[in-house]
Amino acid sequence: MAEGKEVQVHLLPQLAAPGRLAGSVAVVIDVLRATTTIIHALAAGCSCVRPCAEVEEAKTLAGNMPAGKVILAGERGGKPLPGFDLGNSPREFTPKTCAGTTLVLTTTNGTRALLRAAEAERVLIAGFVNYSAVCEQLRHDPRPVHIVCAGTEGQATLEDTLLAGALVEFLCEELDVMLNDSARLAWDCFENHGRVLVGALEISHGGANLRRLGYDDDIKAAADVDKFALVPELRRNPLRVEVGSVGIVRHWQK
Amino acid sequence: MAEGKEVQVHLLPQLAAPGRLAGSVAVVIDVLRATTTIIHALAAGCSCVRPCAEVEEAKTLAGNMPAGKVILAGERGGKPLPGFDLGNSPREFTPKTCAGTTLVLTTTNGTRALLRAAEAERVLIAGFVNYSAVCEQLRHDPRPVHIVCAGTEGQATLEDTLLAGALVEFLCEELDVMLNDSARLAWDCFENHGRVLVGALEISHGGANLRRLGYDDDIKAAADVDKFALVPELRRNPLRVEVGSVGIVRHWQK
Repeated sequence: MAEGKEVQVHLLPQLAAPGRLAGSVAVVIDVLRATTTIIHALAAGCSCVRPCAEVEEAKTLAGNMPAGKVILAGERGGKPLPGFDLGNSPREFTPKTCAGTTLVLTTTNGTRALLRAAEAERVLIAGFVNYSAVCEQLRHDPRPVHIVCAGTEGQATLEDTLLAGALVEFLCEELDVMLNDSARLAWDCFENHGRVLVGALEISHGGANLRRLGYDDDIKAAADVDKFALVPELRRNPLRVEVGSVGIVRHWQK
Repeated sequence: MAEGKEVQVHLLPQLAAPGRLAGSVAVVIDVLRATTTIIHALAAGCSCVRPCAEVEEAKTLAGNMPAGKVILAGERGGKPLPGFDLGNSPREFTPKTCAGTTLVLTTTNGTRALLRAAEAERVLIAGFVNYSAVCEQLRHDPRPVHIVCAGTEGQATLEDTLLAGALVEFLCEELDVMLNDSARLAWDCFENHGRVLVGALEISHGGANLRRLGYDDDIKAAADVDKFALVPELRRNPLRVEVGSVGIVRHWQK
């Protein structure tokens, strides 16, 4: 069999078999919009993000934190939740709102992907907005790479697969790799759609949802390649996302 | 929203939500090797194929048929089963063996995909070996199209996605269509790998398995585009696959 670093893509969290991520570095992708939003929030000054699977769990967690030090945010079906401070639009997360706060976040698909990926030894959070910074981390990490796409309601999505493919292409150019078939599919997707990024996000399942809800600008925000140089990383006890590393070498080639 | 004929790809049977296929024409794909084998067997003269999910079920069904009129065949993990007449290699199904017999077939992934697709109103069986004949049927069928890939052990595979993409490309050129994101991924896959079909099947997950087991020639057999002009179709009461239609206009363009 071929030798090289194992690079696997999972088009949905549930397609990664139990135990599969153990010992690896996992990359979580939910371009529209959870991982893009997490990156925006940390860049805007949130000290950490606490992902919650359920709405009630998020409310309880936020309710136990000091007022003024917490933002309760998230969505169901793309829409903001009643009684929450913010929705899941990356553009809502400004320095004025975020500085020094903990973000308690619950989303339909992204949170689930993040919690599934927690099985890995190291977990990074990726969007197009921090693409090159994630590439740098993966280049230097000796572990097998598992890229976990959130998808939408149990369906593989173009937008997440496209970013997975961009990461696969980078790794293939830098290293000897062994790909699974989904990594090849993702790479094909990036080859064909990478040069028309905004257009691809607009026609994607998630993009069409957002346009119907009036969030067209969130698509452009999600496609703003390398806007940020930080890589959010999962920390444990309690499970949370913080700025893991900062620094950038630009790798985007489309 | 865009208008047009709905064309959806499901990269694995379990990714088609329950009820999703109702009223549609479904196309089942397990290039390596169940659907390729079914096409070979019917072309070689089997009168019908009875798909069975379980080994014991297949044995019992075949045991209740007159000797000399039934072939018990299948695999687990790609290997022939003890006590079975044949494995799952398309090249085993010759006119001498097959003429006038019922084939009772149980395979790891393909049978499951076929049984899942039975929810659709009409179910066609596709391989590269009958690509253009399937295209012709889909072109004239007014129903929404759902292409169900078998995958391997719960993982999306390059070989099935590639054929799904070839069908998507044909339908996109012939008709106004609405694609789901997986159909776009499949199309991308075909765009990038369609011209190197045998090579793509060899590096695929299923292809690598077969090469390890010594079935290299089965890969070439599966890549023999338009060898046959027949389209197997699922019939009911009892559930079985028979020759549904015969006739070909060549559509392969790679």
